[in-house]
Amino acid sequence: MKTLISVCGSDGDDANLTSYALETAEIVGRLVAKRNGVLICGGRDGVMKAVCKGAKDENGMTIGILPNSKNEANEFIDIALSTGIGHKRNFLVISSGDAIIAIGGRWGTLNEISFAMIFEKPLILIRGTGGIVDEIINGNLLKNEYSPYHIVNSAEEAVEKAFELCENI
Amino acid sequence: MKTLISVCGSDGDDANLTSYALETAEIVGRLVAKRNGVLICGGRDGVMKAVCKGAKDENGMTIGILPNSKNEANEFIDIALSTGIGHKRNFLVISSGDAIIAIGGRWGTLNEISFAMIFEKPLILIRGTGGIVDEIINGNLLKNEYSPYHIVNSAEEAVEKAFELCENI
Amino acid sequence: MKTLISVCGSDGDDANLTSYALETAEIVGRLVAKRNGVLICGGRDGVMKAVCKGAKDENGMTIGILPNSKNEANEFIDIALSTGIGHKRNFLVISSGDAIIAIGGRWGTLNEISFAMIFEKPLILIRGTGGIVDEIINGNLLKNEYSPYHIVNSAEEAVEKAFELCENI
Amino acid sequence: MKTLISVCGSDGDDANLTSYALETAEIVGRLVAKRNGVLICGGRDGVMKAVCKGAKDENGMTIGILPNSKNEANEFIDIALSTGIGHKRNFLVISSGDAIIAIGGRWGTLNEISFAMIFEKPLILIRGTGGIVDEIINGNLLKNEYSPYHIVNSAEEAVEKAFELCENI
Repeated sequence: MKTLISVCGSDGDDANLTSYALETAEIVGRLVAKRNGVLICGGRDGVMKAVCKGAKDENGMTIGILPNSKNEANEFIDIALSTGIGHKRNFLVISSGDAIIAIGGRWGTLNEISFAMIFEKPLILIRGTGGIVDEIINGNLLKNEYSPYHIVNSAEEAVEKAFELCENI
Repeated sequence: MKTLISVCGSDGDDANLTSYALETAEIVGRLVAKRNGVLICGGRDGVMKAVCKGAKDENGMTIGILPNSKNEANEFIDIALSTGIGHKRNFLVISSGDAIIAIGGRWGTLNEISFAMIFEKPLILIRGTGGIVDEIINGNLLKNEYSPYHIVNSAEEAVEKAFELCENI
Repeated sequence: MKTLISVCGSDGDDANLTSYALETAEIVGRLVAKRNGVLICGGRDGVMKAVCKGAKDENGMTIGILPNSKNEANEFIDIALSTGIGHKRNFLVISSGDAIIAIGGRWGTLNEISFAMIFEKPLILIRGTGGIVDEIINGNLLKNEYSPYHIVNSAEEAVEKAFELCENI
Repeated sequence: MKTLISVCGSDGDDANLTSYALETAEIVGRLVAKRNGVLICGGRDGVMKAVCKGAKDENGMTIGILPNSKNEANEFIDIALSTGIGHKRNFLVISSGDAIIAIGGRWGTLNEISFAMIFEKPLILIRGTGGIVDEIINGNLLKNEYSPYHIVNSAEEAVEKAFELCENI
């Protein structure tokens, strides 16, 4: 069975999405593919598209779990899974991943992060990618609660940590 | 049709749940019932049980949207809706409410708060109730993002604001 | 806690929906209300509206679990629960009921009937109401499978059977 | 993007599951893989396992949408997507497929068939595979309703029809 790495983060219409976050996402995609991991995401734009582009650059496989239909998928998605339940599909991005990496993001990403903690999935936040990820890191959000998250400083560290945590499952 | 007020917050096993949060929840329940609102919550313990107790003290109606089965419901639930989907039922607590009030809480409450923002539902956070609610308030979490939340200082203000926002829908 | 009776059946645009089915639904609604049961349904037209009308004639309480938003609810719904997941909300009509009564119907009703059998809920089919209900009865559909259904000949028998089966849970 | 063919049918504990149904499933899997289609199913035993075995014999790709966790997956699943929502995951097997093929089956398969009709997905029933599929064919179940299904006589015809219908989408 394939190792599944889920990536969540800013959609394409996030005005605060930085080029650093997008570059980081692309490197994450490349590194996941190089290690033969399958990339799972929400299938749309912004961080999701960048991570898929990276994975395809290394001939990886990409799965998009879409809010409604296949034509919402970005051009780097191999397998477009339509759910028809809108944002309520977020939980599937998380429940399906062996580990989760979060980059930037807003309420939707926070929704996925909270699911990761509720499901006790390994969750890695990449520092410096902005948005909710940096707000959580800087504010130590719920840091002492029942589920812990992991903070890393780069795409390389994130993928390293993700695969390390998958092996421990 | 009835006005539906959803309340989310700490479960009974939250070690940081304060008596102030529980008292606030109980007053919220009473005031919602006095205004003929129907109370919706996750149906279990802690804040959920306190708010239902308050509502029943004033002969209000309480609906619990339960993770699995009816026997998870607290003793103040009139209508126990079993979902069988575990924590994935959180979205229903939010999608069903005309307005949402949050009290204390951890990752589960944050999950519901993020759904409220994604669905663009009126969301009221009661300051001083601890947990994620105060962390959001103190950290100004995602304050400038596409969906805004309302901060109030008491149960009375929360219910006042909730009904005011329902009327504007 | 209230006894919850779920009713499923033809929507308003079913060309084969008979006046007998509608009359039967209305009587079911009345009888459920008389016994202080709460009526749950999909909240829309046809059989759903008729059963709600009956319940309100006897001052019963009606809950509609709606595909999308509150404004889809028929005029006899007290509590309109919005799900935002379209037809995927069908499982909630079934998981929430202590017993299920089916009247007429097409693929949507068959979807709910199959959920009733999968969840091993008490399911009552009213003979003579047409649609998928009579097709199941006449064809003995999956009659020997792991979950059995109950066949009755009238609204009165259906409600009698439903409450009897609830007591045995 | 890959063409996605969903297959539903009897689980491994179906006492009426025939060797003909299993052989048919295995051939369906092989033919879907030969045409570079990705196979989607519920990920478990019986028809699901046979169809995955066939696909892997031809180096195809198999996706299992699992009720709960990855360890429920049969040995021929490449990508095991955990949902954590039990049988409520059925809709995803259908919403994700570009076309659906049904083989034998009971209430669970009927649940998936009804979703296929509700979502207006191309649905192909293979005659002679027993269970609910033959009951629907022999009883002309809901044959004149708003969504039609296609009846074929072999695995070869089923896959031919499935890809033909996908092209027309």
